[in-house]
Amino acid sequence: MHAVIMAGGRGTRFWPRSREKKPKHLLDIVSDRTIIQETVDRIKPLIKPKNILIVTGQKHARELMRQLPEVPAKNILIEPVGRNTAACIGLAAVHIQKKVKDDVMVVLPSDHGIADPAKYRSVIAAAAEAAEKKSALVTIGLAPTSPHTGFGYMEGGASAGKAAGEKLLRVKAFREKPNLEQARIFLQNGNFFWNSGMFVWQASVILKEIEKFLPDLHSGLMTIHASLGTSSEARTVSKIYKSLASVSIDYGVMEKAKDVFMIPASFGWSDVGSWDTLWEISPKDPQGNAIAGGSHTLYENAENTLVYSPNKLVALIGIKDVLVVETKDALLVCQRGQSQDVKKIVDALEAEGKRQLI
Amino acid sequence: MHAVIMAGGRGTRFWPRSREKKPKHLLDIVSDRTIIQETVDRIKPLIKPKNILIVTGQKHARELMRQLPEVPAKNILIEPVGRNTAACIGLAAVHIQKKVKDDVMVVLPSDHGIADPAKYRSVIAAAAEAAEKKSALVTIGLAPTSPHTGFGYMEGGASAGKAAGEKLLRVKAFREKPNLEQARIFLQNGNFFWNSGMFVWQASVILKEIEKFLPDLHSGLMTIHASLGTSSEARTVSKIYKSLASVSIDYGVMEKAKDVFMIPASFGWSDVGSWDTLWEISPKDPQGNAIAGGSHTLYENAENTLVYSPNKLVALIGIKDVLVVETKDALLVCQRGQSQDVKKIVDALEAEGKRQLI
Repeated sequence: MHAVIMAGGRGTRFWPRSREKKPKHLLDIVSDRTIIQETVDRIKPLIKPKNILIVTGQKHARELMRQLPEVPAKNILIEPVGRNTAACIGLAAVHIQKKVKDDVMVVLPSDHGIADPAKYRSVIAAAAEAAEKKSALVTIGLAPTSPHTGFGYMEGGASAGKAAGEKLLRVKAFREKPNLEQARIFLQNGNFFWNSGMFVWQASVILKEIEKFLPDLHSGLMTIHASLGTSSEARTVSKIYKSLASVSIDYGVMEKAKDVFMIPASFGWSDVGSWDTLWEISPKDPQGNAIAGGSHTLYENAENTLVYSPNKLVALIGIKDVLVVETKDALLVCQRGQSQDVKKIVDALEAEGKRQLI
Repeated sequence: MHAVIMAGGRGTRFWPRSREKKPKHLLDIVSDRTIIQETVDRIKPLIKPKNILIVTGQKHARELMRQLPEVPAKNILIEPVGRNTAACIGLAAVHIQKKVKDDVMVVLPSDHGIADPAKYRSVIAAAAEAAEKKSALVTIGLAPTSPHTGFGYMEGGASAGKAAGEKLLRVKAFREKPNLEQARIFLQNGNFFWNSGMFVWQASVILKEIEKFLPDLHSGLMTIHASLGTSSEARTVSKIYKSLASVSIDYGVMEKAKDVFMIPASFGWSDVGSWDTLWEISPKDPQGNAIAGGSHTLYENAENTLVYSPNKLVALIGIKDVLVVETKDALLVCQRGQSQDVKKIVDALEAEGKRQLI
């Protein structure tokens, strides 16, 4: 079994900590390990580091190797440009085919938090069994814990038996991010699951599906496959990649494919997607104040705050529902619930030509 | 004419900028000059630097000399310990007597903002004329612009004619800091004035009043007077000062004296007493955001904020009515209207033994 960790994100939403040179998954935001280190640590008991592939951009490759010494350097696959998840997964699939003809591949985002890693591994092992037995596409469906409007949902269909003790369902339909009213209905219904972005299938199976629904991508991937290990590999990958359309695997394949299965699961998943989310998943004092990164913080009548400031004392007076993030060259003070607008700050800095701050 | 600038304050209310080693009046909070430099700049056209005395503590003397090269070093009078304004003014008075037998002394706090310095000097010149002609205690009464509860008030009494074109009134009564209801009545009445803490009188006159109401202080001052210029001066001042009671000139003398006059005045006075006050007197953008110290600040839906962060970009998202102050080793985020609680943070740091942060 192979793991494929997709580590191509820009992660501007954790600005000012995340920067172009150091996106979210390369930062120690949740613990003293970086998010990608946690992802590898979590899957390692199930899949050996020599079978863990990481797909990333050129500028992050060196830092990834530094952070993950146990993963062989040749397992860091470089995308010359970002072309969304269909291309990323296809690239990993042809690498696996080149290496071992065929194998089950477990596709994982690089930036999730998991409270129960043992359960997580059981579910993945079950998904791998199902993927192999049925030669089909298998996803992990997360039982929703809130009417979240930021995720896509999957509707559960007919039962397809069990795999390694886990229930297996057909996926009846994929649903785009809902509005709040819809999300509430999904939550109440009980048969809708968050699309976790975790996929399990054989390399040969996903490539066949790509051939069916994204023939241009497939032909590009075949050209890349032929070049792997030759002197023209880098040139070919670069040329092909630039010509590819940017399509997500969900939109490009999953929503169109016939045989898609899902294992409904609960293992304390969280999308560590923003400073707001970090506050939500962080331990807090009785007043709701959370500290990230060991900051020395003094409170005077402060509630529901998050502070990241590892090198400097912070004093909060009369402050409620505020996120404070301090780095060497920038300071963010953000009302809770509005951290998605961090992107606007990054855009403004880009417009001002302040490259060193983004 | 001599000026006596009282520069003994701790200024903890401007933490984290103000520190024990650098209280408020030694900081460039309002402009690119420090507050004490502005005070000297403002009075210099009326009183030559060689006649400007500054009373301060030992640990701030060197910095004062550095900031005020035009003031002779011997004019920096050191109090071995702080003993409130009666002792401070008495010490300056005996120095003036030693130097020139007698002279009018203009007593000024070190930390006020004045929008109209020309008018300010006219009023002080008029007060000096009155103080000399009547051999009496003269104060400056500020026409209140709001029902402020943080200042003492003086009630105007009978007219006492004019001095250099300015109206002169007897002071009928001193009133301690009022509650809001009282303050509103004072404001509406029109005959109540803020006690500015600026006093004008002859050295001989204030010493006579001190003799009458604070005989112990007077006898101590006489001992100091006799020691000035002798080899025992430092020892004597130190010994006497430690034995003195801590009494304000208002409570100790002004409220008890018979012949106290006031010049009612308006010259754009402000007490730069806290980060809240600084926001109030600062120029603001249409959303009410003020920047102190040239900070590079980006706003996304921010209103009525103050930012001091000269060395670091600040991004505010969805933040309203917040004061943000960033220094090399500390960061303050404070709800507007609560900056008086900065003192509690300083106290907490003291309790934690974090001497380097206070």
